[in-house]
Amino acid sequence: MSIAVDGARLIARLKELGATGRDDAGRLCRLAASDADRAGRDLLCGWFRQVGLRIEVDRIGNIHGIWEPEGASGAPVVVGSHIDTVIDAGIYDGCYGVLSGLAVIEAMQTGGLRPAHPIAVVAYTNEEGVRYAPDMMGSLVAAGGMAVEEALAVTGTDGTTLGTELARIGYAGPREPGFLKPHAYVELHIEQGPVLEAGGQAIGAVETLQGISWQKVTIGGTANHAGTTPMALRRDTGVAAARVIAFLDQLAHSVPGAVATVGTLAFQPNAVNVIPSAAAFTVDLRNPDEERLKSQESALAGFLAGLCKEGFEVGTERLARFQPVAFDPVIVAAVEASAAGRQLACRRMTSGAGHDAQMIARVAPAAMIFVPSRGGISHNPAEFTAEADLIAGANVLLDVARNLSR
Amino acid sequence: MSIAVDGARLIARLKELGATGRDDAGRLCRLAASDADRAGRDLLCGWFRQVGLRIEVDRIGNIHGIWEPEGASGAPVVVGSHIDTVIDAGIYDGCYGVLSGLAVIEAMQTGGLRPAHPIAVVAYTNEEGVRYAPDMMGSLVAAGGMAVEEALAVTGTDGTTLGTELARIGYAGPREPGFLKPHAYVELHIEQGPVLEAGGQAIGAVETLQGISWQKVTIGGTANHAGTTPMALRRDTGVAAARVIAFLDQLAHSVPGAVATVGTLAFQPNAVNVIPSAAAFTVDLRNPDEERLKSQESALAGFLAGLCKEGFEVGTERLARFQPVAFDPVIVAAVEASAAGRQLACRRMTSGAGHDAQMIARVAPAAMIFVPSRGGISHNPAEFTAEADLIAGANVLLDVARNLSR
Repeated sequence: MSIAVDGARLIARLKELGATGRDDAGRLCRLAASDADRAGRDLLCGWFRQVGLRIEVDRIGNIHGIWEPEGASGAPVVVGSHIDTVIDAGIYDGCYGVLSGLAVIEAMQTGGLRPAHPIAVVAYTNEEGVRYAPDMMGSLVAAGGMAVEEALAVTGTDGTTLGTELARIGYAGPREPGFLKPHAYVELHIEQGPVLEAGGQAIGAVETLQGISWQKVTIGGTANHAGTTPMALRRDTGVAAARVIAFLDQLAHSVPGAVATVGTLAFQPNAVNVIPSAAAFTVDLRNPDEERLKSQESALAGFLAGLCKEGFEVGTERLARFQPVAFDPVIVAAVEASAAGRQLACRRMTSGAGHDAQMIARVAPAAMIFVPSRGGISHNPAEFTAEADLIAGANVLLDVARNLSR
Repeated sequence: MSIAVDGARLIARLKELGATGRDDAGRLCRLAASDADRAGRDLLCGWFRQVGLRIEVDRIGNIHGIWEPEGASGAPVVVGSHIDTVIDAGIYDGCYGVLSGLAVIEAMQTGGLRPAHPIAVVAYTNEEGVRYAPDMMGSLVAAGGMAVEEALAVTGTDGTTLGTELARIGYAGPREPGFLKPHAYVELHIEQGPVLEAGGQAIGAVETLQGISWQKVTIGGTANHAGTTPMALRRDTGVAAARVIAFLDQLAHSVPGAVATVGTLAFQPNAVNVIPSAAAFTVDLRNPDEERLKSQESALAGFLAGLCKEGFEVGTERLARFQPVAFDPVIVAAVEASAAGRQLACRRMTSGAGHDAQMIARVAPAAMIFVPSRGGISHNPAEFTAEADLIAGANVLLDVARNLSR
């Protein structure tokens, strides 16, 4: 039996939630545990109640709406994402996954389906990490990766404490984080990148989440006069940095799955007629495969060692390192099967951004479904996904949730 | 007849002048037309008087000490440089050339020489251009390249007016700039670069002064997420800038006489995980040969055109452009002949920095003599040239002045 989500209601709710928590300048700004976040949470919980879900909030503020129809038992199939936002956000990031989860349950209710497992919709606290670090905090705590007491004690950029703010807005719940161990977790999300749009696919079956390696590299040489110092007598750190950047770019084009970005760069003394005596830059390497990510890191280290031999002083500092996440192949296959059944073009892909699913993958089978983002733009009011794509993605989530909850 | 300068007196005067005009922090800081500059000028004029020179100051404050012995007539052989300094300067830059000129006249007097031409020592006003722009101002005005009224009206970095300050310190002279047309001009100077030290030569016979081309280049692309944007879908302006920098470096290694420096660089938005949407940098190209300098500029333009074809938006802005200066071959040959006669290792070379000689070369045969600078360092208290090198250079200047004044 083919059933479908109520697309019009999904879109209407996305817009209503997107209109909630705007600041005086009209910017969408539902930072975690703020008054704006409370307004969004209250709206969400109202919808959960309308659909007859049992609401459970844990100590870190993760909201669960649980549908436990007659005959369903055991661990629930969990679908969801987050509803906190960055400053001046778009309306899709996170919210789309949560509201689609709600739409899935409604569709199953309307269709008279009787799943063997309960279905839960979850909205994790503080995925964005703008006000309180680290990001993906609610799912991290739920997965046991951070003690709840530690998380509640985090001081925000505005000097507040997360625990105090959660209590103030009424979302410091009684349940222990992790109380709900998922049978499986599926997160539907906008891609936040250009791959699906460029490839003309409606659905991304996300099988991996990239590992991330962040380093800061500093190259020291000698400041000399740009006019009086012949090329053969220079130690130009700007040229050395440029060679590293060009090398990393070429390397990333040749290593499967790799991306490499030098996003920040500063010269010293940064004067037109002085050869840079120091160049400092960040390196962002990513790969969904740990061995390949390591090979990128090794190649960088080798290149930097070559610069040392040329007489440069080279220093590196590790800023961040996360291993890639491999999502559950059974769920990924279910996503593909649903897309095929609905005649939606689908591709297997990796997630370049971090998501709650990577935390939950530590404790349960998990995967993600992506839909296209116009121009790859996200974290910006220009964030946009066409309604047809939004509805198609929600229907794939419906199929996968049905499949997993049988 | 071989004569020589009084090396000990030259060194002693260099040190005495170098001790004059220091600020409260002990930094040598004789900015043009300041009280400190007056102190240096007064000291110099006292020495000129001791040697019996006739002092002539022009309206832009250039000081001339003229030795017109019996039998000398016509245009004078002019030797000199400047005595104003940068902030926190060394003691050699400029002063060495002026005091060596004085030493040359003393040596000729002591030796009983009777030149056919008068000899004049000159100290040009505001060569450094730190307080008042442009630099090399006194020689520029003397050569007719800038109207004296315009120069005197220049407002300084401290809000003062050059003309007012010159009058205040007593060095707004009565003579019209350019009143003294040189028979020839020879400027002895520390190299301010590493070439002589690296080559083990005591004397540089400076035959050219590099042409300079300064541009600002801006590359525009698209800001995208460092994780979610595959390599094939990027327009990474940081990588594009890096390719330009590496290209200019390789080019300068292959074009004779060329140097190329990218001294400043800025990424937008300059965030670790955002592909730079814009990169702006300066390009400093130099060559003693105009055609080769043009070929460097053309090669850069061609490379940038290639980036345009790849989809980048590229803008360029000309910041400065000066043609190379070819010094007088007769004087250069005289420098070489003197060095050979005194068994001093000598090389023909180009000047990478600007000097008063390039202005005077517009109106008279001119050339320069360089002596080594330790580590190529200048405009810094660490500026240093060994006493033997200083004395050797002054003796070459003596030979050349004798030769030209016959």
